[in-house]
Amino acid sequence: MKSSSVGQVTPKKAYFDAPIALKSGAALPEFSLAYETYGELNAAKSNAVLVCHALSGNHHVAGFYDPANKKETLGWWDNLVGPGKPLDTRRFFVVGVNNLGGCHGSTGPRSKNPATNRPYGADFPLVTVEDWVAAQARLADSLGIDTWAAVIGGSLGGMQALQWTLAFPDRVRHALVIASTPRLSAQNIAFNEVARQAILSDPDFHGGHYYAYTDDQGEEAIPRNGLKLARMVGHITYLSDSQLAEKFGRRLRHGKHRFHYDVEFEIESYLRHQGDKFACIFDANTYLLTTKALDYFDPAFEYDGNLRLALARARANFFVASFTTDWRFSPENSRELVYALLHNGLNVSYAEIDCPAGHDSFLLDDPCYHAALTAYLEGISL
Amino acid sequence: MKSSSVGQVTPKKAYFDAPIALKSGAALPEFSLAYETYGELNAAKSNAVLVCHALSGNHHVAGFYDPANKKETLGWWDNLVGPGKPLDTRRFFVVGVNNLGGCHGSTGPRSKNPATNRPYGADFPLVTVEDWVAAQARLADSLGIDTWAAVIGGSLGGMQALQWTLAFPDRVRHALVIASTPRLSAQNIAFNEVARQAILSDPDFHGGHYYAYTDDQGEEAIPRNGLKLARMVGHITYLSDSQLAEKFGRRLRHGKHRFHYDVEFEIESYLRHQGDKFACIFDANTYLLTTKALDYFDPAFEYDGNLRLALARARANFFVASFTTDWRFSPENSRELVYALLHNGLNVSYAEIDCPAGHDSFLLDDPCYHAALTAYLEGISL
Repeated sequence: MKSSSVGQVTPKKAYFDAPIALKSGAALPEFSLAYETYGELNAAKSNAVLVCHALSGNHHVAGFYDPANKKETLGWWDNLVGPGKPLDTRRFFVVGVNNLGGCHGSTGPRSKNPATNRPYGADFPLVTVEDWVAAQARLADSLGIDTWAAVIGGSLGGMQALQWTLAFPDRVRHALVIASTPRLSAQNIAFNEVARQAILSDPDFHGGHYYAYTDDQGEEAIPRNGLKLARMVGHITYLSDSQLAEKFGRRLRHGKHRFHYDVEFEIESYLRHQGDKFACIFDANTYLLTTKALDYFDPAFEYDGNLRLALARARANFFVASFTTDWRFSPENSRELVYALLHNGLNVSYAEIDCPAGHDSFLLDDPCYHAALTAYLEGISL
Repeated sequence: MKSSSVGQVTPKKAYFDAPIALKSGAALPEFSLAYETYGELNAAKSNAVLVCHALSGNHHVAGFYDPANKKETLGWWDNLVGPGKPLDTRRFFVVGVNNLGGCHGSTGPRSKNPATNRPYGADFPLVTVEDWVAAQARLADSLGIDTWAAVIGGSLGGMQALQWTLAFPDRVRHALVIASTPRLSAQNIAFNEVARQAILSDPDFHGGHYYAYTDDQGEEAIPRNGLKLARMVGHITYLSDSQLAEKFGRRLRHGKHRFHYDVEFEIESYLRHQGDKFACIFDANTYLLTTKALDYFDPAFEYDGNLRLALARARANFFVASFTTDWRFSPENSRELVYALLHNGLNVSYAEIDCPAGHDSFLLDDPCYHAALTAYLEGISL
C-alpha cells in the first residue's frame, strides 16, 4: 500500500464565546482554537482522532500550506498522518489543534486582551494540560464529535491523551501515549527551569510585555537570546548522546582548532542555528507557559502520588510506546504508566522501541515504531 | 586509623618571569600560579603528588583558611587529602594549584595585562590542558620536584593527569584519572556551548571587558545572569536523574501549585540558589576559557582519532575510576581510555564504582571509591 500526502490544507478557527474557567482559578472570557482536519467524519461520527501537540508543535499536523514550498510548510507529523500512513486518513477523520496559550492561531499571550485592548503578554493566565483538554472538548462539541475513536500524542501530547481518559472517560475509546510520562521527573523540571530563567532574565523580555517594545531597528523586541538558549538546551536533551556522537562527533567546522568563541565544532553550529531559527518562529510567553503546563501535570498529585488510584476512572484502551534512547521521557516512565493502567484492569499495548534518536524518535518514521502504530490503529473498530 | 584535617592552610604564589608559549600560538610574557601544599617533601623528593582541579575548582584542595569558619573555607577535596585519608599527608607531599586563566589567584582574565595596564578581560588568551600542564611543570621545577609520585584529578582534572603522562612521561610515576574522559563527546561540547552562549549573550558581559563597567549600584558589572544559567545547566548534568528524584522529586515549595514563575518546585529553588551563589564567586571569563579547554582536549586529534597511538608515549602506571550514574563522563569513556592504555602495555587499575551521585561522585567520600583510592595510593612506593 503506497502512502501519500493529505495534500494542501488550510487551517480553520473555532471561536468560543462562553468563558472557560482554568485550573489556576483564572478564567478567559472567550477564546479561539486554530485547528485542521484531514479525512472525512463518517456518518456514525465514530472515526474521529484527535492529535495533541508537544512543546513546539501546533495544529498543522499533516499536509502542506504552500504547494510551491511543500517542505517548509509541511505538517509536523506528516509521516504519520495521511492516506496509507499509520494514521490513515482514508479511514480516520483526524483533527489537529493548537492549544490554548499557543502562538500559532489559538488564543494566547499575543492575542488581544479584551479587558485592555492590548496583547495579554504576561497577563495571559497559566494554562494546564487539564485546561487544554477542556478546551479541546469544546472543539469536539463544535465538530459534533461525541466520542473520539482515539486521542494520540507524543511527549506533552501524550499527557493530553492520558488526561482525556481521566477528564472524559466516556469520550475517548483509545489513548495513544507516546514518549511521554504520567509526571515529569525533577531532572525534567530542572531543564525546564533553565529554559524559563533564560527567557525571564533576557532584558528584551520586559516582564513578558515585549510586544509593546521595539528594538534598534524599529522591529518588535523579542527575548531572542533567552528563547534561543531555551531551545538549545532543550534540543540537546531531545537527542541521545549516541546520536549526537554519530551525527556530529567532534567534527570541526574548519578542520583545526582556531581558539576563539566562534563556531569550532559542528555541534555548536547546529545548536546555534536551531536556536536562532526557533527564536524567529516561536513566542517566548507561549514557551514559558507550556513548560509550566509540563511541570504541573501530575494526575497522581491529588492521590498522594498513587498513580494507580489516579487512573482508576480511565476506561479507554491504551497504546503506550517509549524509545530506548529517550533519556528525557525514559521507558521507565512509560512502564510506570503501563503498570498503573494494568492494575486498573485496562487493555494496554506497550511497545519499547529500540530507536537511536532519543526523545525525538516519536517524530520519526522508524519502521518498528510505525509498524506498531499501524497495527494498533488498524485494530480500532469504527 | 582515624583521619584528621591538614588544619589551617595559607595559599602561596609562584611567579614566573619567563614567557610561556601557549598552544593557541599566543604567549604570556609572565605569569603567577597560586598553590597550596600539604605534608612534607621527603629528602629523596619522591613523595610529591599533584592535585589538578576541575571546572570550578582551584588550588585550595584541603584544610581550611579560617578556624572560625572551617566549613565555609574548607578545601574542595578535603575528604580525600589529609592525615589518615586516602591521599595521606603523613606519607605524601601534596600540591594543589590554580590553573592558568583561573580566578583564584593565578594569572587570569582579571589580572593586569602588562601591555595595557588594565585587566586582560577578553584579551586573555585561550589556554588548553596542555598549557596548564606546561605551567604546572614550571611550578614543579620551582619546588624542586623532578618526578611526581602521582598526579591525580577528577573530570577536567583527570584530563590534566593524563596529559602529564604524555607531555612528561618521565616526570610522573602514577596517574589517577577519575570520572574523566580522553575527549569530550558531542553532547558534552553542546552543554558547554549553551553555558558559553548564556555568558556571551548577557548584556553585562560587555565583550568580556566587564571589569571596567559598573552597574546601577556603582558595583562592578558582571554577567551574573549568564553565569547563573551556565552553572544551572552544568549542575543538572553533574547529578544523576535518580539522585535528583531522590533529593527533590516533585516536592513543592509551598505544598500546592501556585501558578506563577516564582519557585514552585524545590528543585527550582535549589538550582537558582546554586546559580546565584556561583555567579558571586566565579569569574565569567575563566568559566568561558575553561569550557573551551575541556572541548579542545583530545590527545588523539593528531593521530586521526586513534587513541591507542596517541597514548603510546605514556610510561606511568594508571588508576582509572568511573561512576555508574555519571552520564556526563560515563564509564564508557573511562573504559575506552583503559583499553587504549592496556593496548600500550601499561599497568592499569580500573574501578567502576556504583555510586548514585552522578558526575559529582568523584568529590564525595563514597566508601568503595575511597577504599579503591586508598588501596592504590598505599601501593605507591616512595
